[in-house]
Amino acid sequence: MSRTEISTLGEFGLIEYLTKNIEIKNSSTIKGVGDDAAVLSYGDKKVLVTTDLLLEGIHFDLTYVPLKHLGYKSAIVNLSDVYAMNGRPKQITVSLGLSKRFSIEDMESFYEGIYLACEQHGVDVIGGDTSASLTGLTISITCLGEGEEDKIVYRNGAKDTDLICVSGNLGAAYMGLQLLEREKAIFDGSSNFEADFSGKEYLLERQLKPEARKDIVELLAQNDILPTSMIDISDGLSSEIKHICKQSGTGCRIFEERIPIDYQTAVMAEQFNMNVTTVALNGGEDYELLFTVPLHLYDRISKIKEVHVIGHITDSKFGEILQTRDGSEIELKAQGWNSIKEE
Amino acid sequence: MSRTEISTLGEFGLIEYLTKNIEIKNSSTIKGVGDDAAVLSYGDKKVLVTTDLLLEGIHFDLTYVPLKHLGYKSAIVNLSDVYAMNGRPKQITVSLGLSKRFSIEDMESFYEGIYLACEQHGVDVIGGDTSASLTGLTISITCLGEGEEDKIVYRNGAKDTDLICVSGNLGAAYMGLQLLEREKAIFDGSSNFEADFSGKEYLLERQLKPEARKDIVELLAQNDILPTSMIDISDGLSSEIKHICKQSGTGCRIFEERIPIDYQTAVMAEQFNMNVTTVALNGGEDYELLFTVPLHLYDRISKIKEVHVIGHITDSKFGEILQTRDGSEIELKAQGWNSIKEE
Repeated sequence: MSRTEISTLGEFGLIEYLTKNIEIKNSSTIKGVGDDAAVLSYGDKKVLVTTDLLLEGIHFDLTYVPLKHLGYKSAIVNLSDVYAMNGRPKQITVSLGLSKRFSIEDMESFYEGIYLACEQHGVDVIGGDTSASLTGLTISITCLGEGEEDKIVYRNGAKDTDLICVSGNLGAAYMGLQLLEREKAIFDGSSNFEADFSGKEYLLERQLKPEARKDIVELLAQNDILPTSMIDISDGLSSEIKHICKQSGTGCRIFEERIPIDYQTAVMAEQFNMNVTTVALNGGEDYELLFTVPLHLYDRISKIKEVHVIGHITDSKFGEILQTRDGSEIELKAQGWNSIKEE
Repeated sequence: MSRTEISTLGEFGLIEYLTKNIEIKNSSTIKGVGDDAAVLSYGDKKVLVTTDLLLEGIHFDLTYVPLKHLGYKSAIVNLSDVYAMNGRPKQITVSLGLSKRFSIEDMESFYEGIYLACEQHGVDVIGGDTSASLTGLTISITCLGEGEEDKIVYRNGAKDTDLICVSGNLGAAYMGLQLLEREKAIFDGSSNFEADFSGKEYLLERQLKPEARKDIVELLAQNDILPTSMIDISDGLSSEIKHICKQSGTGCRIFEERIPIDYQTAVMAEQFNMNVTTVALNGGEDYELLFTVPLHLYDRISKIKEVHVIGHITDSKFGEILQTRDGSEIELKAQGWNSIKEE
């Protein structure tokens, strides 16, 4: 039997490969694999389901992440997926694999973070599974939410000329991670650069205590704006807009100068000798919402302070383009985190 | 800050401790933590949610478990939880943490098993999360199912004089595990006992390819029997009946001579010099259904060939009792697997 390395397909490729032959059997399954959340129908309301697996050493480093923050963030990343469907998160299950290194007090801290996130978003913890682990901490959270049938927003609804919008600002969580990694290197003794977090609190907060944009979903509803497509930014703007374009069968044009970047992010990127646009495009973990709205809603969307129009959807033949400040055009690539450092 | 080892509370204790202050916020949450599955209400049908986390080295050993079987079993243990609520499983999410050791072909085998279980039970795979892992294989599956409001069966409905029933037979999966462990010891060179699986196929199948008792749930409905309480046997009869008694506020009396044991299980237990009743009480992983029915349904339940009446519910003051073949009484203890070997 032949052996093909998983790296040849990548995460998305593997999922696509393994799920390509799924045939839906139940009338209650409206949408399965392939969006931020699945959509189920169990009566008048639709049920949204999303799940995330977080592994120590891959998704988090307990050297600098307090357990309470980790609990909070573990919940938030799931809630964010439900908001990205224009839904409201309602319940989560929390499964943990725990090595002997962890005490009950540790787990209390972790759950404090979980419960804080749930409190802020009106979510119930309804179950889970707890197990011994031979190796570090494993966290698996599944979130259920509800949405109204005609208001659930998928990734595949973007249309030519739609405006591309993003909430908040991008790249800060990634720069926060760089700061923490530098701090760790000092602890390790592998660097003697003096860590200084003063004035960088915002970047750390974006990395350690990200927020799910419940407020944006509410503002959109209040302003009677139903996006044509939506996704949350967990892997970086490039990767996410490419998901929307691929599933919608469109192209896009993003304007570099319109990508929202916080002042601290820009300063830190310069200190680290990184291109701040590359950071914003590929940094990930911002958990901002990326969505498209019809062109005629320009005035309405412009009034929402926390939302920025960064480009527009095009016919697929024009590709996925970044127009730089100097007017040149670059094809958008989903680089992900690792490749940023190699630049 | 003090440090308390998790072992002082145990798995159930830890869950209880961490979830004791949960206050339900959503009207759609009917039942949260504390049963085989949570119960949600999103319209006329009720939604059941259950999740399991399986870790390499803790829950499975890839030395002797083929990946296809592991996929099958990973799905089945979740479906079994939905059947244990008298529900019908409908959807699952599958999350995997994968180290570089695993190839795409490995994952295809694993998913073949998942899809086979889903095919047999009419279940849709609706999503999941796939991640790199530094350490072995991590599997987290969440299952959603549906149930009718007045037919969902909880753990807490057992009443004094109810009959205690169990499907199939007990202890075989545990003896299958012993066989496989012995085989592994021979590979390791740590034992020179000659492994011989002939005539033991049933035990291996019970361990490697357990079934969720959809048929029993259907037979109960066909015979118009609604259990007063139900649970699936994942940790062993003792542990499960104690869950029912604790949550129902009752005691119980189990008759040793009525515990259903397969001939091969008995033969293997003798070969391994184990007490077969101890194996049946504490072996676990049988995924049979344990349930209680009102006494007046005795005739009706007796007609179902695959179900055995093994005792009855008592007032809580009488405790949780095993009446042995020689008429003496022993208090039931939830020993779990580890303690079996120490006897």
